[in-house]
Amino acid sequence: MTKYKQSILVRKDLKLPKGKLAAQCSHASLEAALKTSKSKLKEWKQDGSKKVILSVNSKEDLINYKLKASKLNLKTALIKDAGKTVLKKPTLTCLAIGPDKEETINKITKKLKLLN
Amino acid sequence: MTKYKQSILVRKDLKLPKGKLAAQCSHASLEAALKTSKSKLKEWKQDGSKKVILSVNSKEDLINYKLKASKLNLKTALIKDAGKTVLKKPTLTCLAIGPDKEETINKITKKLKLLN
Repeated sequence: MTKYKQSILVRKDLKLPKGKLAAQCSHASLEAALKTSKSKLKEWKQDGSKKVILSVNSKEDLINYKLKASKLNLKTALIKDAGKTVLKKPTLTCLAIGPDKEETINKITKKLKLLN
Repeated sequence: MTKYKQSILVRKDLKLPKGKLAAQCSHASLEAALKTSKSKLKEWKQDGSKKVILSVNSKEDLINYKLKASKLNLKTALIKDAGKTVLKKPTLTCLAIGPDKEETINKITKKLKLLN
């Protein structure tokens, strides 16, 4: 059976505090989900709306993974924080990919580690 | 002008690791947003899709805030983790309220502190 998931890549180098991190991931998750077709959202929900939070090391990583995802026609949401609170200037913080077929997303993100 | 936001209340007592925390908040944010009318989602987006991550101390807090929100006709999403990874049994982790008018949500959540 085809499985669906959403991967959210977060910059570890920013060392975001927990609340900021959770808000940024929520922005990314929602924005990418709203770009996704209703049929895919339904499949994803049936798989428990699986979300995986992964760690990357830099702004460049986020941009590169966005390009790779777009080449596979995956929906993405790249989030830029306005830089008015914890961060002092506008900053790319995270990237959501999907929800889409797990095997397609894994082609891009399989080497990334879970954020811990 | 009426401002819109979404508040996400997280149990601090669980001491969730960052990745787990971010995934749970993303679940809550998305599920509550999908219950919200398109017109409210649009207003919220115009306000930058503001999300605030707040801290509560217990499962009972989550349930009480859900009841308070429902009495004001606010949409909510109470998230139960399946307990197959970090948590060892099914566990209520967080609650999203809204998006809705900031002044209405504040009636319930104004005493809560930001998660840090």
